[in-house]
Amino acid sequence: MNFLELIKKRQSCRKYIPGIIKKEKIDRCIEAARLAPSACNSQPWRFIVVSTPEIKDNLAENAFSGIYKMNAFAKQASALIVVVRERSYFSAKLGAFFRGVQYSLIDQGIACEHLILQAEEEGLATCWIGWFNEKAVKKDLCIPTGKKIDTIISIGFAENPELRNKSRKDILEISEFR
Amino acid sequence: MNFLELIKKRQSCRKYIPGIIKKEKIDRCIEAARLAPSACNSQPWRFIVVSTPEIKDNLAENAFSGIYKMNAFAKQASALIVVVRERSYFSAKLGAFFRGVQYSLIDQGIACEHLILQAEEEGLATCWIGWFNEKAVKKDLCIPTGKKIDTIISIGFAENPELRNKSRKDILEISEFR
Repeated sequence: MNFLELIKKRQSCRKYIPGIIKKEKIDRCIEAARLAPSACNSQPWRFIVVSTPEIKDNLAENAFSGIYKMNAFAKQASALIVVVRERSYFSAKLGAFFRGVQYSLIDQGIACEHLILQAEEEGLATCWIGWFNEKAVKKDLCIPTGKKIDTIISIGFAENPELRNKSRKDILEISEFR
Repeated sequence: MNFLELIKKRQSCRKYIPGIIKKEKIDRCIEAARLAPSACNSQPWRFIVVSTPEIKDNLAENAFSGIYKMNAFAKQASALIVVVRERSYFSAKLGAFFRGVQYSLIDQGIACEHLILQAEEEGLATCWIGWFNEKAVKKDLCIPTGKKIDTIISIGFAENPELRNKSRKDILEISEFR
């Protein structure tokens, strides 16, 4: 599978069937994230893989209740990967300050997409989730309140792995040549 | 080449040799970025590919002078891809507001890394650049001052494509299982 085929195959999965993910598959996903580039090589990320059923069920219950219920599908995933934003190096923070850009978020986008594309290669289905009860997640996993959690990735086995069409802007709308 | 091999091969290139990039290669890179997922499918990005020598040289001269000189290596690249942050959809902006996270930056990280990994697959060398004179770039390319440019990607042919070791945090430092 070449890279374009891989990214065409990746799609957000919101319907999972039960199944246990082999540890070595998750390890390769984390390894793919670990190798990601980041501003000043800060690697401002930590991945908490939650797959023990009672811990995961409890986490999902708290993370995706109330106004976050639209993402309750994630309860059915085999694991939830909670992505904690870690501190960037001083040089990266300085650059971010002067440029007015939170490069640590760009970094997180890169690393998580590495993880997600590796999962796709492993035959696993995933979904990027940004809408969840962050406070409850921190409480549940004993993450210090000062930390920021921007993303949870649900990962597991797709109920229906059939490819949907990707709805995207036209290439002429997003690019130009000079 | 599988995905892990691809990301191991990708490395920041700061020494380029002259060469013209075939249009279809650039097109596939943009296509890879176009297919990237984003919060509420906002696709908040636009890619300006600058490869006409006099336009590129002028842009590089202005973008990487003075305090930005450390990235003057990019002048030697065959093209510079200027990434403009576009507006996210209202739902994404609302979510970003309530969650306190600029998801459009995570989106940009994903899309640009798609582009960069496709470039790697095409045998092209790249570098993520966040440190440049944004004001000068906007003036040069007639981009409205209200727009934000977070990233420039240099792209071309590596002088020395030999793989360097990636210096990364230990996997135990960036992950845990529960």
